[in-house]
Amino acid sequence: MPRGPLVRGWRCRCNSWRVFVLDTVAKGVETELTRFFATARLRATDYGEHYVALWDSLEQASSGGKRVRPALVLAAYAGFGGRDQALVSPVAVSFELLHTAFLIHDDVIDRDLARRGVANIAGRFNDRALAHGAATDQAGVWGTAAAILAGDLALSEAHRALAKLPVDVRTRLRLLDLLDRAVFVSAAGELADVTNSSAKHPLTVAEVIATLENKTAVYSFEAPLQAGAVLAGASAEAIRLLGHYGRLVGVAFQLTDDLLGVFGDPVKTGKSVTADLREGKQTALIAHAGGTQSWSLIAPYLGKIDLSDEEAERAREHLRACGAKAAAEGLAYDHSRLAVETLNPAIIPRDLRASLIELAETAVNRVR
Amino acid sequence: MPRGPLVRGWRCRCNSWRVFVLDTVAKGVETELTRFFATARLRATDYGEHYVALWDSLEQASSGGKRVRPALVLAAYAGFGGRDQALVSPVAVSFELLHTAFLIHDDVIDRDLARRGVANIAGRFNDRALAHGAATDQAGVWGTAAAILAGDLALSEAHRALAKLPVDVRTRLRLLDLLDRAVFVSAAGELADVTNSSAKHPLTVAEVIATLENKTAVYSFEAPLQAGAVLAGASAEAIRLLGHYGRLVGVAFQLTDDLLGVFGDPVKTGKSVTADLREGKQTALIAHAGGTQSWSLIAPYLGKIDLSDEEAERAREHLRACGAKAAAEGLAYDHSRLAVETLNPAIIPRDLRASLIELAETAVNRVR
Repeated sequence: MPRGPLVRGWRCRCNSWRVFVLDTVAKGVETELTRFFATARLRATDYGEHYVALWDSLEQASSGGKRVRPALVLAAYAGFGGRDQALVSPVAVSFELLHTAFLIHDDVIDRDLARRGVANIAGRFNDRALAHGAATDQAGVWGTAAAILAGDLALSEAHRALAKLPVDVRTRLRLLDLLDRAVFVSAAGELADVTNSSAKHPLTVAEVIATLENKTAVYSFEAPLQAGAVLAGASAEAIRLLGHYGRLVGVAFQLTDDLLGVFGDPVKTGKSVTADLREGKQTALIAHAGGTQSWSLIAPYLGKIDLSDEEAERAREHLRACGAKAAAEGLAYDHSRLAVETLNPAIIPRDLRASLIELAETAVNRVR
Repeated sequence: MPRGPLVRGWRCRCNSWRVFVLDTVAKGVETELTRFFATARLRATDYGEHYVALWDSLEQASSGGKRVRPALVLAAYAGFGGRDQALVSPVAVSFELLHTAFLIHDDVIDRDLARRGVANIAGRFNDRALAHGAATDQAGVWGTAAAILAGDLALSEAHRALAKLPVDVRTRLRLLDLLDRAVFVSAAGELADVTNSSAKHPLTVAEVIATLENKTAVYSFEAPLQAGAVLAGASAEAIRLLGHYGRLVGVAFQLTDDLLGVFGDPVKTGKSVTADLREGKQTALIAHAGGTQSWSLIAPYLGKIDLSDEEAERAREHLRACGAKAAAEGLAYDHSRLAVETLNPAIIPRDLRASLIELAETAVNRVR
């Protein structure tokens, strides 16, 4: 869905998000995470091999991601002149582990045993139980227990990393408030998401966007950016703008994700283009289609567990024909554009602003 | 199982534990919890009625308990001369919410929809979903989602309450370490408990005790006592002794709980005396029986889902006859006695020591 650049004269470097992230994430974050898991594993040996395996699974669950949240913390911190790597790393780690905790508990809620084709914690412990001769049902309980506990451990360390920070009281309380809001709003978004997934009618576009914003944009974009800025001592107005930007760009990312989940190239995204349709996932795409006369043609394909590739292609054709694809792309683009517009050059430092504009470009102009 | 007093000349006031708790728990803790939930509910209204209902359910889940952990925080704090109610209340609340979080996630792991005969969070949301016309399976997913999220919210506030505390850096770090250990060890204990529940052979008594200690005694007794003492500025040796006492008395409590779960008076305990047998719960009682020649007579009753009252009574007779009941009572008594012996009068202040001796008495001489 390439469109014109969000900022006139801006040279779009499509697909550079991963580069941006890898460039920005300092090694300090990886070192901090590695050290945390090594210490935990050592402590866990006092409690038996299964608990060590739980920590191994948790470390695996926290690895392999794009480290988007640490990158945003570091970008905002550096952007406002922060230079203390040892101070910012735990903050970055906090938001990464929060993300890990949410993914793990999300999988328990969705009863998933794999993530991106690889066994997740519940899946690994399920297999482990079966290998130890457990019955299927017992193995399921054990897998769920392991995943719930692993999520609790990751969530706890997310809080602890901030709580231990050697900063003045005011900064600590502000960081804690950001984390608190992230948890509070994400839980609301997750509950709404689960509620929506069993809705009998298509949602409105506004409902879809509110859920994306609450479930993901706040904890993944708003809070990490604001935390980095708070730690660097940015002004209240700068922090407010970053929050606004974060919510908008976060929604743009999620809208694009949902588009790639139906119209993407599975080879590039590593993501099925039938799974969301089969699941009947409530996206902006579907919400828009629900308000058109084509709905009766599209509805039968949604939530059809045995949806074939041919049927999925027909659903895609209808989604294109009724304007839903273009509408969802337009929504993503609008959110990205509005995000960039919040970045008042008088308030957001130049280099940070450039990075954030690039991020907003990438949110909508990417193939994975 | 009444025996002689643990301390010569000590007048046992059986069943006074509830009195002890209610006497000790200051209203400040209740006020703090009420305020926390009122604020959260108000914030939740921005995210729809279901999220408000989630907070209502969480508040309900946190109420009605004996407030054992807050009582221990307050007793240790006051015992070492602490007088700042506003400072200690959030610490007490932290351990109470940690407990709430663990109970909620424990129920998810055990797939329970009720606790003490009342619908728990998953049960309430399950009913709510059915009332909204959801299918059985969807209602189950929604209930699980609500309970996982509620546990995450309670766990988050447990961390936040300590992190916000206006104390010096050293005290804060020590309190955070206590909470960290509580979470770390409880997760190990919970994993072991779930693992044990599917063991094909009876456990050893040592395995049962290690699990009780890790799953419950550390976070419920050791950590709250130590936290109160740390906050009051007690000596390192006093804190060490309280931790030791807490683990021992916590195990005594759990051993007694398991005895009451088979031999108690349901009218007084409010607890079934067949449920643990039906479930095949791995207790010290069962572990001891597993090492006797009566095991083959007892084993068929354990884990028998349709166990009748008559069969349960026969199981009880065998457990008495093989000496398992006496052995488990002896173990509880020994733990309680050893707990009292740790309370060096030169180090533990007199009033606190008296309360803790009473608590140790109550741990083994109670009928509920």
